[in-house]
Amino acid sequence: MFGTKDHLRAQGGHLLIEGVDVVDLAEKFGTPLYVTSEERLRENARAYREAFPEAWIYFAVKANGNLALLRVLAEEGLGADVFSAGELSLVRMAGIPMEKVLFNGNSKSTGELEMAVEAGVRVSADSLDELLALSEVAREMDEEVEVAFRVNPDVSAETHPKIATGLKTSKFGIPWREIVEVYRTAMSLEGIKPIGLHCHIGSQILDTSPFIEAASKMMDLAEEIVEIGGEIEMMDFGGGLGIAYSPGTEAPAPADLAAGILPVFRDRCREMGISPRMILEPGRSIIADTTLFLTRVNVVKRAHVNFVGVDAGFNLLARPMLYDAYHHAIVANKADRKPKERYTVVGPICESGDVLARDRDLPEVERGDLVAMLDAGAYGFSMASVYNGQPRCPEVLVAGGRGELIRRGEDRSVFLAGQVVPPRLLK
Amino acid sequence: MFGTKDHLRAQGGHLLIEGVDVVDLAEKFGTPLYVTSEERLRENARAYREAFPEAWIYFAVKANGNLALLRVLAEEGLGADVFSAGELSLVRMAGIPMEKVLFNGNSKSTGELEMAVEAGVRVSADSLDELLALSEVAREMDEEVEVAFRVNPDVSAETHPKIATGLKTSKFGIPWREIVEVYRTAMSLEGIKPIGLHCHIGSQILDTSPFIEAASKMMDLAEEIVEIGGEIEMMDFGGGLGIAYSPGTEAPAPADLAAGILPVFRDRCREMGISPRMILEPGRSIIADTTLFLTRVNVVKRAHVNFVGVDAGFNLLARPMLYDAYHHAIVANKADRKPKERYTVVGPICESGDVLARDRDLPEVERGDLVAMLDAGAYGFSMASVYNGQPRCPEVLVAGGRGELIRRGEDRSVFLAGQVVPPRLLK
Repeated sequence: MFGTKDHLRAQGGHLLIEGVDVVDLAEKFGTPLYVTSEERLRENARAYREAFPEAWIYFAVKANGNLALLRVLAEEGLGADVFSAGELSLVRMAGIPMEKVLFNGNSKSTGELEMAVEAGVRVSADSLDELLALSEVAREMDEEVEVAFRVNPDVSAETHPKIATGLKTSKFGIPWREIVEVYRTAMSLEGIKPIGLHCHIGSQILDTSPFIEAASKMMDLAEEIVEIGGEIEMMDFGGGLGIAYSPGTEAPAPADLAAGILPVFRDRCREMGISPRMILEPGRSIIADTTLFLTRVNVVKRAHVNFVGVDAGFNLLARPMLYDAYHHAIVANKADRKPKERYTVVGPICESGDVLARDRDLPEVERGDLVAMLDAGAYGFSMASVYNGQPRCPEVLVAGGRGELIRRGEDRSVFLAGQVVPPRLLK
Repeated sequence: MFGTKDHLRAQGGHLLIEGVDVVDLAEKFGTPLYVTSEERLRENARAYREAFPEAWIYFAVKANGNLALLRVLAEEGLGADVFSAGELSLVRMAGIPMEKVLFNGNSKSTGELEMAVEAGVRVSADSLDELLALSEVAREMDEEVEVAFRVNPDVSAETHPKIATGLKTSKFGIPWREIVEVYRTAMSLEGIKPIGLHCHIGSQILDTSPFIEAASKMMDLAEEIVEIGGEIEMMDFGGGLGIAYSPGTEAPAPADLAAGILPVFRDRCREMGISPRMILEPGRSIIADTTLFLTRVNVVKRAHVNFVGVDAGFNLLARPMLYDAYHHAIVANKADRKPKERYTVVGPICESGDVLARDRDLPEVERGDLVAMLDAGAYGFSMASVYNGQPRCPEVLVAGGRGELIRRGEDRSVFLAGQVVPPRLLK
């Protein structure tokens, strides 16, 4: 019923995650609620480690910044790809070793560069301008920083335009034709130790061929750099492997990605006589399918179509609105019933775009039912806002047959946080 | 230089808001920063009150939930359109009288219905299902609640599909053909006092004709309701008036809207012999142009195009990414210089869609410059998230020649708020 999702099953009409009844979780913790399977998370991390035994796997923290989940990934030996000072703080707190962290991003502030240097993490330089700023920061702090260069490989991958990051028109990276020159500049810059290349071609990619194309292009560039006397200690091929959100689609496993890019990497390294560390930055393919997002039905309205109004919308799960993304919807307290009618599941947000699931065949839905949106672990809570006066919900981790709170839900006091009313307006 | 925006001007090369130099504000409060002109806000509120002297003007709190700004609007005599328990709390705190509040929304939880009844605000019922739930809640609390009915008028307005809310396919409201029957049901329901009709056809609408069409349809429905013996004490025509985001476009003023819909309303009321209170729910047209969003340039990259990387992106100003919306960009510390090159202004977020301003002719931009995005007061901070580990920025109110903090910026500790790590993961 749930494809390859062994951590999900139906029993007694209810949806279970790692053997725990989500109807009970909704009773205990309230809705909306994010629920993650720890076992599934560990399995996904191990699948990468086994497929790429010599590589370092850096979890893309932007996909999910929950500290307990980052702790689990730290236990599984993963490093982290961070995109800001905020993400670096989280990763530090989670106990991920700084040598397994890459500070990524196309627009880092001076404060962020200083923090990266101070923490001793490697930095991915996105432009010559940033490289010069980083050199200045490192010199002033009397430190040397190891730098990889974000390459814009001009590789096209089939995905939503907002998350295709490897096209030459994207804002990310140094155009690949300029990389060797920038590397040469870097080799003579004070405070900078150039150590390799980095790319990331996009997100939710379901075909391994663009990864192979990018890897091959990256190895060509590495060769040119070796030829000018540059050192290549790391080659970071980024993340972007997709998952099968909708039933009937198939996604490559980490092993499939390995079968595609490892031969390219190993052969070219051998030819060049170099042995850099391979790095990958998966996010979605590690965390997405571990988590479901549980909502409660407030209202069923028969209008132009049958609308099911639930208690959360794009404030807590933005992907359907942002990318027309599909998340499979299950009526969690009627998980064994056959579909009866076609429904469109909407949230409480004041925009027509606030639709979680369009035209789905579901059992008869009534006020009080629970709707679970699957595969919500990546870019779910991490993109949440309090738009429309909706506090952010709790998160729960399921392990050993029970659910534990891993993030407390907010109450309405959150809307007052930081607010200051000048006394003259308090007359 | 700034069209009708009298609160903005350039002086000594710097951009000034209500006479205050934004370069100084950036120094004092840091960037990114939201900056609002109090005078402009009061003027905008007064323009509505003058155009519609007998109406009650309900500010759409979803557009901006800053408490100090809500206080200013309360002083100007405005009421509020709220969409959740959270927004109701804010409005209460701001001292807006409960008799001038409408609790709106297509998917209200039982807790929200209870809160509305307890607060004594009027409720806009979005469906029959919700009406029945509300009746149950009111009965149990031994209260009577005044209810308006959200009509889906099936009126098409030219705007972005995500914010067109008056189409029959939208999730909002009761189909207009069913309104009279629902009203009849409501008249016999315990705990419910039906008092009128409500519609909202969309947002950022630059033509008054769909408003007139909707008003006319609403008055037709009111007539049918009067014929079955229903009372019509209020007629709420919603909000949605657009503003001129890009230079060269023109937007109708509140007076233009009044010239369009007041005659329809007054004539039809006279014919029917009723005298309901007219209500309007403007958000954007009151708050958008009062506010600019100030960012600092981290990096300038010459790639396929010239990228200007600033210190905030769709985490703090989502409209360009969400709706391909235009916000005018000004280099605030070079406000008197002529355009020299074409730039694309991007934020630090890990997605290709994180573009604030595409292909703009600007003076030469360098690291450290300030880029101001205009008209950012509506759906700016209110849609902010901490995605990518980016804390939310402060807000400042300018009045009497100085800027005052009206919301403190967050620091990185915000990422730890509410997080719980089970002890077993702290080995």
